[in-house]
Amino acid sequence: MMTNCGAVILAAGDGVRMKSAYPYVMKKLLSKPMISWVLTAAKKSGIPDIAVVVAKPDGMVAQFVGDECEVFAQPEQKGTAHAATHAKAFIEAHKNGNILILNGDSPLMDAGSIRNALMHHLEAGNDVTVIAARVEKPFGYGRIVRDHNNGNFAGIVEERDASGEVKRINEISSGAYWFKASSLLLGLQNTKPRQNGESNLVDTISWLLENGKKCDTSSAMSPDVVLGANDRSQLHELNHIARMRELETHLEAGVDIPCFDGVVIDPDVVIGMDTVIYPGTILRGKVVIGKNCKIGPNTIIENSTVGDNVILNNTQCYQSVVKSEANIGPFVHIRPNSVVGEAVHLGNYVEVKNSTIDMGTKVSHLTYVGDSDVGKKVNFGCGTVTVNYTGRAKFRTTIKDNAFIGCNTNLVAPVTVGEGAYTAAGSTITEDVPDDSLGIARARQVNKLDWCLREKK
Amino acid sequence: MMTNCGAVILAAGDGVRMKSAYPYVMKKLLSKPMISWVLTAAKKSGIPDIAVVVAKPDGMVAQFVGDECEVFAQPEQKGTAHAATHAKAFIEAHKNGNILILNGDSPLMDAGSIRNALMHHLEAGNDVTVIAARVEKPFGYGRIVRDHNNGNFAGIVEERDASGEVKRINEISSGAYWFKASSLLLGLQNTKPRQNGESNLVDTISWLLENGKKCDTSSAMSPDVVLGANDRSQLHELNHIARMRELETHLEAGVDIPCFDGVVIDPDVVIGMDTVIYPGTILRGKVVIGKNCKIGPNTIIENSTVGDNVILNNTQCYQSVVKSEANIGPFVHIRPNSVVGEAVHLGNYVEVKNSTIDMGTKVSHLTYVGDSDVGKKVNFGCGTVTVNYTGRAKFRTTIKDNAFIGCNTNLVAPVTVGEGAYTAAGSTITEDVPDDSLGIARARQVNKLDWCLREKK
Amino acid sequence: MMTNCGAVILAAGDGVRMKSAYPYVMKKLLSKPMISWVLTAAKKSGIPDIAVVVAKPDGMVAQFVGDECEVFAQPEQKGTAHAATHAKAFIEAHKNGNILILNGDSPLMDAGSIRNALMHHLEAGNDVTVIAARVEKPFGYGRIVRDHNNGNFAGIVEERDASGEVKRINEISSGAYWFKASSLLLGLQNTKPRQNGESNLVDTISWLLENGKKCDTSSAMSPDVVLGANDRSQLHELNHIARMRELETHLEAGVDIPCFDGVVIDPDVVIGMDTVIYPGTILRGKVVIGKNCKIGPNTIIENSTVGDNVILNNTQCYQSVVKSEANIGPFVHIRPNSVVGEAVHLGNYVEVKNSTIDMGTKVSHLTYVGDSDVGKKVNFGCGTVTVNYTGRAKFRTTIKDNAFIGCNTNLVAPVTVGEGAYTAAGSTITEDVPDDSLGIARARQVNKLDWCLREKK
Repeated sequence: MMTNCGAVILAAGDGVRMKSAYPYVMKKLLSKPMISWVLTAAKKSGIPDIAVVVAKPDGMVAQFVGDECEVFAQPEQKGTAHAATHAKAFIEAHKNGNILILNGDSPLMDAGSIRNALMHHLEAGNDVTVIAARVEKPFGYGRIVRDHNNGNFAGIVEERDASGEVKRINEISSGAYWFKASSLLLGLQNTKPRQNGESNLVDTISWLLENGKKCDTSSAMSPDVVLGANDRSQLHELNHIARMRELETHLEAGVDIPCFDGVVIDPDVVIGMDTVIYPGTILRGKVVIGKNCKIGPNTIIENSTVGDNVILNNTQCYQSVVKSEANIGPFVHIRPNSVVGEAVHLGNYVEVKNSTIDMGTKVSHLTYVGDSDVGKKVNFGCGTVTVNYTGRAKFRTTIKDNAFIGCNTNLVAPVTVGEGAYTAAGSTITEDVPDDSLGIARARQVNKLDWCLREKK
Repeated sequence: MMTNCGAVILAAGDGVRMKSAYPYVMKKLLSKPMISWVLTAAKKSGIPDIAVVVAKPDGMVAQFVGDECEVFAQPEQKGTAHAATHAKAFIEAHKNGNILILNGDSPLMDAGSIRNALMHHLEAGNDVTVIAARVEKPFGYGRIVRDHNNGNFAGIVEERDASGEVKRINEISSGAYWFKASSLLLGLQNTKPRQNGESNLVDTISWLLENGKKCDTSSAMSPDVVLGANDRSQLHELNHIARMRELETHLEAGVDIPCFDGVVIDPDVVIGMDTVIYPGTILRGKVVIGKNCKIGPNTIIENSTVGDNVILNNTQCYQSVVKSEANIGPFVHIRPNSVVGEAVHLGNYVEVKNSTIDMGTKVSHLTYVGDSDVGKKVNFGCGTVTVNYTGRAKFRTTIKDNAFIGCNTNLVAPVTVGEGAYTAAGSTITEDVPDDSLGIARARQVNKLDWCLREKK
Repeated sequence: MMTNCGAVILAAGDGVRMKSAYPYVMKKLLSKPMISWVLTAAKKSGIPDIAVVVAKPDGMVAQFVGDECEVFAQPEQKGTAHAATHAKAFIEAHKNGNILILNGDSPLMDAGSIRNALMHHLEAGNDVTVIAARVEKPFGYGRIVRDHNNGNFAGIVEERDASGEVKRINEISSGAYWFKASSLLLGLQNTKPRQNGESNLVDTISWLLENGKKCDTSSAMSPDVVLGANDRSQLHELNHIARMRELETHLEAGVDIPCFDGVVIDPDVVIGMDTVIYPGTILRGKVVIGKNCKIGPNTIIENSTVGDNVILNNTQCYQSVVKSEANIGPFVHIRPNSVVGEAVHLGNYVEVKNSTIDMGTKVSHLTYVGDSDVGKKVNFGCGTVTVNYTGRAKFRTTIKDNAFIGCNTNLVAPVTVGEGAYTAAGSTITEDVPDDSLGIARARQVNKLDWCLREKK
């Protein structure tokens, strides 16, 4: 079905109405830019080639989509038809096929609606098929006008051009259209700019209708797909819709979310049955969480994998792996490239960075494990620091199985603490400690009797 | 009134619709399983004997309720009448009295509705009294059908059996019924299984009606009492209802909750007048908080007692006592079995575990106080660690009144720091420090001049 | 227009209905007492003189407003006219002008409504002008009754005196009135107490109407301005309204607030374009935040200034300055009187107090910087403590540019670490370290071979 199809995403709008210094298609819905949602929908629908029309050939948007899409620059923004014209080479390359026009700021467009519309477009042999929906609040959107006699599609009227009667129509255009590529090229050629200098695809469609081309609509799978974010209030509203959609999906899958407040879950996050998500939990990017975990409150997990029966209480975890039965928090920070093993305990005020910690190890409090390889069943005393940085270079620390690190110990890397070895509390360990040996580096205690009485005088 | 009464709670349902590996009556409403809410309502209403029908005689539910209830196993789930039959011995033991049937997944049933229904049941001499309510969305519930002429109760029709007309009835059965025990036994004996093999109490009631027994309804005190949680969405919804009910109750009692977001308060929590609860605060289990406190944001208090004028900012406190005027947080962790005295200050990154800290003591930063007994007006330097674990055993630390613990001190237990004594910053204290004395254990400083310049070469 | 005008704020009500031990005008809307909002509205409207009627001449309210207002005590609360009479001296001092009566518990009254009402009051030559609004739920408020023939204002009827017909009126009095001062004095003189001993301004207005004085209404700019907080539920509701108003205002200004949950922003907070505010963020008092920052989740900023491109992740910042490009959090605490310089990094479990940290410095973990002056590009090892308190006095620490502080170092103030100097990990530095030199104070490491094997026996 998708043979010789292409999609053109219009993404050259600036951030003026959004009050932003950045292109507004880069504004985020959940944790991804809007343009990324549109791109994902187009790719999921199976469209093989995608072009993006941007304002600046080397700007933020071009850089963001450049690896996956053909990029066309439209330095001046003079309407949607004007934008599409800048992708003429792309349209011509698909001239025997069909072109989908998408808006970079309508991020809830979905693959199903795109495919349904194409199916109707092909079966009916349309020149253009408008993806449309009925909504409660049509204000601001182009209304679908129909022939009074037969109900046939008769054009799109934009808000500014709409009469009172037309304004009451609640069927609206999503601004996404499937065109026969050849009809699109013909239409663009014949679209005249308006007085304000803009030439718009709405007028291209008018011209096609007037010239006897076959134009029709296809219903979107949900009214949400037409929603656009032109300002921050709309962006907030879209975020709310997207957020609720994810939360409901996880409830259906057997996840417990007793209170939604502050819970924000990205699409494509996977969560196992019976896991409980407490308030204030944010799951960003590619996150996989196992069964029967307790996540939150106030926990961030980003691009990480978490096993079964894990507790993550008031913890931030980035780009890492946490294995089953781990018990973590509160106030823990797992930084990128860490592996926290099975049944490991990380307690309050513990930071782990670029380290592996093997099963059953306990790091209970006020400790920094950085650039380290830690064995099984190691016990970290409170206040342990792996001294990984000399001021010029970083080195690794190795701690072997069953070692016991005394409180407030410094382990000055590169250094190894052997299997079953101990370090004495308060020691700065600069040399390797052999297996089963004690490393100690501290002064003996002296009590100065009645010193405090003398001092007070 | 309750003489010779018993309640049978039906709790054998599995977690299929809930998508859970656990019996769904164990799913939590606020911080207690649903079955626990139903049990509490039955007990509060004054019913002396309670039986619970479970799926497995030694499963999670049986273990949870076993101390307080008679447990009957129903290995196969074939309907509510089938379930009640498994508690036949319990019903027979109350054969001159009355039996209340309750559903383990309708946790908002309340003692008032139970008592009202029994009063009506006894006064009217009913054989069965159905606790009923009018609700906005009757979908899924058994509808109360009434005689068109006199409005008398004429039976319960379940969703799947309901005609279009019956579906529009918004008076529904809670699934909780008072039966004369003898009528229940007679009815159960005569309840025929349906085609799907299930025999249901709705059919038991039909048989009683058909055989001239006196059957009527009693209105629940609130429509919420009929709500059941068969899936996660309903469980979320019940959590929302229960949560809001608690929050409104505390507002009425003179507690300030300026923003409800993320605030989750268990039933039976007591909070004094003028206390402010900030967003993200979770109060679990038996919590008593005094007057004029500031709790939150993002604070968890579990099974603890907090005095008056206490500040708990971004703190987690479990199974402990915090006395009046204490000023705690942010980022503090009070672990079980601790007593934090009057006007004590615990500052950022301080963990207290199984310790008592007497009045006026300050533990301002980055400190672990574990297994310790701390006197009055002690000052802890930053980075103090009570070294309570040798790797094989745990010992206590004693710090007497007015002691001053230097920064980054290790106190290796068992050890005592005497009254008015000092420890020098950076010392590892392994022996007792007498009263008014200074304990010091550190090397003298040496400056290696221009070392850094040489090092850089 | 405001010449010879004065406002009298009635603020003598106790906390009975609010269930509070404190005067209820001191209860907070966002982070300011209600009385403060009313005062601000009066001042913003341009009224030169303001009087406040309080219960106790030296109570909380009197102390709060005393610097800016004339304070009159009304020891017994016997109605609003009775209250106004206690400010008679103030009214007489403006006898050729006009007096605005305001309620201390109607905090959403705004300067625009006050000015509009005065303009109408002066132009029409009214004796009294009632600020009124149409609301959805008029219950509890005084209704505006009008002449059936000409729609003229005919009096205010309080809830308790209202007939069924009057109760259906949804135009209500805000309880705020502009009076000709002379008419007010005359009216007060002629207001008779009711049976319950109260004399009310509603009756004063009745007397003026009956005696041919010119009485009219002026519409408030929003129905919210009439809302009062007599109990905690209403206070919660007002907090919600005020909170949403601020959030919407920031969205319009180009701030991103993807999820409102737990976000509470005070009035007068300034936030730059493209800054994102994550859930659970509280901005209190005078806060200025630059452009393109990421604030939150779970961040508190109080009376502080934050530059551009700053990250503040799960951080609490009080009365301080954070400069552009700073990257802070999670779990950071910036205490008052600190300046965190450009591009400074404060990592997890770092506390800064009363210190300046110059540009490019990194304090990555588990560190306390108190009473310190830190230069540029300094690197703090993990676990550094500035030992600023001897038990009797506090001293400052100075760390110069490019210094490198080893892990778990104590810097015992007063002390200076010179430019480019190092301190060795685990050292307690009690003497100045010269520029480019190494300060070291620790024992040499000894390994006791097989000690652990012997110990286990």
